[in-house]
Amino acid sequence: MEKEVINLAHGSGGKEMQELIENFKFPNRGDWENCYNDSATLDIGYGQNLVFTTDSYVVDPIFFPGGNIGHIAACGTINDLAVMGAQPRGLSLGLVIEEGLPTEDLGVIIDSIIRVSEDTGIPIVTGDTKVMEKGKVDKIVINTSGVGMVHSEGLLTRELEVGDKVILSGGLGEHAVALLSRKFDYETDIITDSKPLVDEVMAVEDLVKIAKDPTRGGIAAVLNEISKTHGVGILLDEEAIPAKQEVRNVTEMLGLNLYELACEGRFVCFATQEHAGTVVDTLQQFNPDAAIIGEVVDDTGHRVILQTMLGRRILPAPTGRIVPRIC
Amino acid sequence: MEKEVINLAHGSGGKEMQELIENFKFPNRGDWENCYNDSATLDIGYGQNLVFTTDSYVVDPIFFPGGNIGHIAACGTINDLAVMGAQPRGLSLGLVIEEGLPTEDLGVIIDSIIRVSEDTGIPIVTGDTKVMEKGKVDKIVINTSGVGMVHSEGLLTRELEVGDKVILSGGLGEHAVALLSRKFDYETDIITDSKPLVDEVMAVEDLVKIAKDPTRGGIAAVLNEISKTHGVGILLDEEAIPAKQEVRNVTEMLGLNLYELACEGRFVCFATQEHAGTVVDTLQQFNPDAAIIGEVVDDTGHRVILQTMLGRRILPAPTGRIVPRIC
Repeated sequence: MEKEVINLAHGSGGKEMQELIENFKFPNRGDWENCYNDSATLDIGYGQNLVFTTDSYVVDPIFFPGGNIGHIAACGTINDLAVMGAQPRGLSLGLVIEEGLPTEDLGVIIDSIIRVSEDTGIPIVTGDTKVMEKGKVDKIVINTSGVGMVHSEGLLTRELEVGDKVILSGGLGEHAVALLSRKFDYETDIITDSKPLVDEVMAVEDLVKIAKDPTRGGIAAVLNEISKTHGVGILLDEEAIPAKQEVRNVTEMLGLNLYELACEGRFVCFATQEHAGTVVDTLQQFNPDAAIIGEVVDDTGHRVILQTMLGRRILPAPTGRIVPRIC
Repeated sequence: MEKEVINLAHGSGGKEMQELIENFKFPNRGDWENCYNDSATLDIGYGQNLVFTTDSYVVDPIFFPGGNIGHIAACGTINDLAVMGAQPRGLSLGLVIEEGLPTEDLGVIIDSIIRVSEDTGIPIVTGDTKVMEKGKVDKIVINTSGVGMVHSEGLLTRELEVGDKVILSGGLGEHAVALLSRKFDYETDIITDSKPLVDEVMAVEDLVKIAKDPTRGGIAAVLNEISKTHGVGILLDEEAIPAKQEVRNVTEMLGLNLYELACEGRFVCFATQEHAGTVVDTLQQFNPDAAIIGEVVDDTGHRVILQTMLGRRILPAPTGRIVPRIC
């Protein structure tokens, strides 16, 4: 019998990863709640809730149009806190560096992290640096973890109802296309969408129910997770889903599923029909492509369904490799 | 001119790493305090102080006598919180796995982490899993970050005074020797000292002033850091420093400096002359090798000095590679 081994699909944010993690029985969450894959909350008394999150970044290449591994490492963890309704308070920075990495490259990466820290006022407060022998790690791997304090309980507790609108804060696929253009050396004007989402989420959090950033596995992963967790169906209007034409061209050319591609500066959220217009108006001040892309429907299968020009089809949770090392 | 690159010494916990980190100007620590390299505290109001810490583990080999990378990843971060006088509340787990790692190996590693979590009652609350292509990372790299709440202000605030005793909680060098025995395939009965220190630190924290676990760079790094930070000299009595004879034999044979070797289940602490005896008595209930190894002295150079049979010599902060990938 062949020995079971870890493969790239286990790291793509799809079903295989979910199954791998569920195989390991972490028995004890203590007093922590909302222990989804990438963050958790702890009631520390006095009406205060701590949020704690972690992410490792293995993006390849480490430099790409509009950003680098440091920029997404800082933004990604800040965003994981923001979508939990938290004010990020501090980040940690764990560097694992390949021997021989030019000090100048490391400098550019760290400068990006510092700039995000300065722009958002969220300090880097603790860190760790390891070096592995040449050939033992590919240039640099970065872990950022983060802590924040919840200031909007609503994002954590509000329930979804049939008729609620699904809102996307901007166009899909820009990070993936920027990355692939650098990897495969073709010309495009698309740059990564990587950015901190604190202000955007805060601007609408009183009016929205759940917010989540579609990183690995894209909106296909995030919306399937939400539909299962909340026991609802989600009907998306394909024509309403924003994406730049050049992004559509590139993903079609490469045979990629736009809905499975990681964003690093977008979030999806839900709002009642009453509030959805206001939410979109507000989000359009940050990004004109923000749009209502669908709604919550009654579906016993808790599926995500895509309304296309040709009819309806199911948008399943991603499986397989998707795009390796996209973040 | 040759391009400057990162080398193994930058990851050894010695002077080169310190200089590299200091080169990057992290401008803004916000309201955080005690921002040493590996942890930081934040007053979150209501008399509560949060501690936040991070560590990446790149140990090679990943399995060694008495433990594995998962065990030290769980213990190391728990210990970083414990020596800050904190009750650890939760850990994050960031896995970066090489494609092709046997799922069984991953299972053993995760089981070790879960066992530490169960034994200490400290939950793993959030995580992240990435997979890199075969050859792009050496088997597995683990980041654990941790949060805790300070329950003993004393460990953070007490000042050192001349005459205070330096106490070590057990013998040096066991983790390093266990690891090297596996790496170079020689026989030894020594196993890693990796273990959670929460109970030991809590047992003495009301009587001690500062506690610190000597990981990378060993007591040479830790005591030099403390002597500089607190503006004192430290005089060590070489004959009083505990280490198993077999550890001494192996380190001598390999030409290693015992005082620079990482421990994963030891801490040094300081106590007044009045309390030192009680502290050692208490620590000996956990490890019979616990001992007073020196004292704080008046030294304008803020040096660590070793009293040997042949006279006194300076014990400098480590430089160079020391032992690569020891944790």
